[in-house]
Amino acid sequence: MSVADKTEGRHYVAAQLGEWMQLSQYRYEHPAFPGRPVPGKLFLKDLLKLSSVEISVNKLPAGKGVPFYHQHRQHEEVYLFIQGSGQFQVDGEVVDVREGTVISVMPDGKRAWRNNSTEDLYYLCIQAERGSLSGDTITDGCKLEETVTWP
Amino acid sequence: MSVADKTEGRHYVAAQLGEWMQLSQYRYEHPAFPGRPVPGKLFLKDLLKLSSVEISVNKLPAGKGVPFYHQHRQHEEVYLFIQGSGQFQVDGEVVDVREGTVISVMPDGKRAWRNNSTEDLYYLCIQAERGSLSGDTITDGCKLEETVTWP
Repeated sequence: MSVADKTEGRHYVAAQLGEWMQLSQYRYEHPAFPGRPVPGKLFLKDLLKLSSVEISVNKLPAGKGVPFYHQHRQHEEVYLFIQGSGQFQVDGEVVDVREGTVISVMPDGKRAWRNNSTEDLYYLCIQAERGSLSGDTITDGCKLEETVTWP
Repeated sequence: MSVADKTEGRHYVAAQLGEWMQLSQYRYEHPAFPGRPVPGKLFLKDLLKLSSVEISVNKLPAGKGVPFYHQHRQHEEVYLFIQGSGQFQVDGEVVDVREGTVISVMPDGKRAWRNNSTEDLYYLCIQAERGSLSGDTITDGCKLEETVTWP
């Protein structure tokens, strides 16, 4: 299912993905494995017309784990756990994950994760090109003098 | 308060931020406003040794709003709402936000948001340099043949 509830303006795209518990409605078909969609995985880059970062929103059911290790060529990743619990490993070192756990993994890190609990695990994965942020994030912002009003 | 529970390896940094409800323990001091820390705002870039993206984790209390508009010079932003409800505006167009709302805002978008509900609002803001993702996010990943094992 694609995201039905979407609004767009000149400088933004907004989408209502629904509650985390409903994430299984989205199925991701990996180009290398046609006909074998993964439920509970949704990528946001194209949906939101992004050009700097890919973000996936994920549900990993109780008892399930990612069955393979992976590394990256140029991208660093951040895993941000929203709800539930599980385990994450990088180069064989294991970290327990739960609400509020954040993990950055550099391209060479050999990573895998699992939900070894009895409740579903919800997390985000954010990836972008290592070294691509040249500017300062605070001074990149420009505060306007105009007072905020709401219709 | 800084993040006390942190582990680090050769290719990763992992931090336990705690439950969303406890986010007020973190206070952000904006360089332009010393001595006026904002509770419930934590930036992750330096903590996680990132070089491609800045991510903030935020709690906006019931009834509060960001009192100014801002734009960006080169960075696109993604706002991802985790829990609670409120409103977001870009160039005067208003979007209702709640669990599962995601909004991308291009640099020129004039943005502000508020929590006009009676419960606290939790969200992430992700910013990175517009146009900086040159590669394909799927082919940047390298799947390893080795079987996943857990200690």
